[in-house]
Amino acid sequence: MSRQQHTTTNLAVIGQRARVAARQLARASTGAKNGALLNIAAALKEREAEVLAANAQDYPDAKAAGLSPAWLDRLLLNPERLAGMADDVRNIAALPDPIGEEYDVRTLPNGLRLGRRRVPLGVIGAIYESRPNVTVDIASLCLKSGNAVILRGGSEALRSNTALARLVRDAIAAAGLPGDAVQFVEDTDRALVGQMLKMRDAIDLLIPRGGPDLIRRVAQEATMPVVTGGIGVCHAFVDQSAALQMAVDIANNSKVQRPTVCNALDTLLVHAKAAPTHLPEIAKAWLRAGVEIHADRRAMTILGPMEEPRIKPTTDDDWGREFLALVAAVKIVDSLDEAIAHIERYGSGHTEVIITEDYSNALRFLSDVDSAVVMVNASTRFTDGAEFGLGAEVAISTNKMHARGPMGLRELTSYKWTVMGAGQVRS
Amino acid sequence: MSRQQHTTTNLAVIGQRARVAARQLARASTGAKNGALLNIAAALKEREAEVLAANAQDYPDAKAAGLSPAWLDRLLLNPERLAGMADDVRNIAALPDPIGEEYDVRTLPNGLRLGRRRVPLGVIGAIYESRPNVTVDIASLCLKSGNAVILRGGSEALRSNTALARLVRDAIAAAGLPGDAVQFVEDTDRALVGQMLKMRDAIDLLIPRGGPDLIRRVAQEATMPVVTGGIGVCHAFVDQSAALQMAVDIANNSKVQRPTVCNALDTLLVHAKAAPTHLPEIAKAWLRAGVEIHADRRAMTILGPMEEPRIKPTTDDDWGREFLALVAAVKIVDSLDEAIAHIERYGSGHTEVIITEDYSNALRFLSDVDSAVVMVNASTRFTDGAEFGLGAEVAISTNKMHARGPMGLRELTSYKWTVMGAGQVRS
Repeated sequence: MSRQQHTTTNLAVIGQRARVAARQLARASTGAKNGALLNIAAALKEREAEVLAANAQDYPDAKAAGLSPAWLDRLLLNPERLAGMADDVRNIAALPDPIGEEYDVRTLPNGLRLGRRRVPLGVIGAIYESRPNVTVDIASLCLKSGNAVILRGGSEALRSNTALARLVRDAIAAAGLPGDAVQFVEDTDRALVGQMLKMRDAIDLLIPRGGPDLIRRVAQEATMPVVTGGIGVCHAFVDQSAALQMAVDIANNSKVQRPTVCNALDTLLVHAKAAPTHLPEIAKAWLRAGVEIHADRRAMTILGPMEEPRIKPTTDDDWGREFLALVAAVKIVDSLDEAIAHIERYGSGHTEVIITEDYSNALRFLSDVDSAVVMVNASTRFTDGAEFGLGAEVAISTNKMHARGPMGLRELTSYKWTVMGAGQVRS
Repeated sequence: MSRQQHTTTNLAVIGQRARVAARQLARASTGAKNGALLNIAAALKEREAEVLAANAQDYPDAKAAGLSPAWLDRLLLNPERLAGMADDVRNIAALPDPIGEEYDVRTLPNGLRLGRRRVPLGVIGAIYESRPNVTVDIASLCLKSGNAVILRGGSEALRSNTALARLVRDAIAAAGLPGDAVQFVEDTDRALVGQMLKMRDAIDLLIPRGGPDLIRRVAQEATMPVVTGGIGVCHAFVDQSAALQMAVDIANNSKVQRPTVCNALDTLLVHAKAAPTHLPEIAKAWLRAGVEIHADRRAMTILGPMEEPRIKPTTDDDWGREFLALVAAVKIVDSLDEAIAHIERYGSGHTEVIITEDYSNALRFLSDVDSAVVMVNASTRFTDGAEFGLGAEVAISTNKMHARGPMGLRELTSYKWTVMGAGQVRS
């Protein structure tokens, strides 16, 4: 049998098994699902040696393959990180079960009792890179929300992911639920990604987690609904009335607290009347943290005299660019309208913040900026499922359909309408 | 300029105008939107002659083209029907505005005030056949929900739709809102549908309303999210414990009250122990109403002795078939499990009902049948936006993503997260 045939067969079977498991899982009790989650958490301690041994095989290969220190760090597992993963799983077990929740319940004039009942979506597909904790994370969120999942991880973490997926499957089976609720594609053939993207009947929702290239490919090629997200070109607007220290704190925290993630700040827009006082202070904080500043012509007239080599003129492609690094673009604008127009043109619809003491401008920004998350006087870094109290997140969606922003358990569900009658007919 | 170039240019321009109008409409007040709706309702009376004159041109052409009486009836406009349309528009004006509603509001431990705020989706595309009232219906629902819409109606109703769309645009402009919020494609070139399906950047959600061929084509070719729906293979299960008269009433109402629509009953499943008593009574009611009955082998042993020419043996393609006519398929099953398995295999995920007096079976049916609407002891005909109290519907979705079942105003919206802070940063 050729390799191509082998992998084709494989994915079709995986898809069928997922569908069967999804039907069983949709009817599983909250107790059984939580039991499986607690089993996973326990196994992450009990089977620590097995997982670390697998990771110890992945790590040197990845290092030899020349992965960056940042990637290597994400790949690395150790007892503390496994304990952290177990804590996350226990947190998911502690969250309320979204499935079965009945809402919008009302009695119609004809006596019919109508409601919406939350149900799982079915089968989730996840294609992700590097970090092995994503395997446990997504599996746990799908399990709790009653969805089966087909996981396809990066080749550099193959052995770590395989070990984690086995552990998860065993833990689920030990709780009396179908182990096939979580299936990991143990094959690094790149053709498999293309095949997964065509499995419209087997996969109800596809979640890509990784770099922009992966996310763009999935958005373009997938035949099923996809969470478009993970790309955040985030803007902060320092309004004329912004409190100085608050502007410095928020700009600094948004940019430097974790620069490699999608909710980090990319472009700072500063009102021309605040720029002379606020911009130099923000720049000083940034420079202390090692940020490289790309300043537009007008910002340069203010920052230029600092004679810092890390302050450079902007280029055209700085606008709308997700830096994912200690780099920020700065532009002076003359009004809130100009700031909003810039965001509308260059933003990715992820997270935007206004820093202001002006009541009307705050409300206008919240109203007129069309992004997944719009903020007043807070760090862009708060756009996060855990920070928002969702417990965890599978992704941050920049779609407007289905779910927007951080996606937790509820965002992995659909609903059905239930109608309880006493023989009513239409006249 | 060739026709092809002409229509390409046209649609691109229409798309750009829709995007501009959508941005303005998203910020429109409820008062302005309701003002536009009331203008539309008034114009349907004031400009009645103009619309009826257009319809009087469409109708004879459609008749000459050999459209069926049912289609001709749908196409026909008269003063009463225009008045009914005006009433529907006034009803939409009276519904609460979904836009701006803030929900799931809470204060996080760090003091951030977090909420979700309902916003429009953006630009809706609608491709529909025959009935000109759909033009006013969808335009009104999109207007109220703050969405711009691009309408493409059937060629047989071109002049009626064009007249109605002009009236709607004038009414919107008279309320100070952008007339381009509603654009009707006044061109019957069939290539335009294919072009619309590729306008991923211009159209955020596409709604097909028409026959199965249109709906399948749109589902397969569209590059943007689509409401898959409108195809209803609806099942009713008469349980062993079903009350006789209730079973007769519901089966009859579900099948005959309006057989040409998607929420009409297609397949009746009857528990073997109820069949001898219940099936003949249901059959009698159906035969009185002119229903043709396709009975499976076991049902035939019960119904055969009636010696009715309208009772025929089933063929294989009767299961999973949407009859859209006075035809029903009947199958005897031995258990609730068998009924659910049949629905799972052959259903379209639209509407299913159990007729039962058994508490546990009622709850199991609601829980285990995975359709947009699951009912106990009620007619399938209740699956309808107006009946569900949504005021109106743009479609009935059999998708599980975004919206399921009847889609009203709320289902034409997305949300954004709003965060109101006092300088919070992440540590």
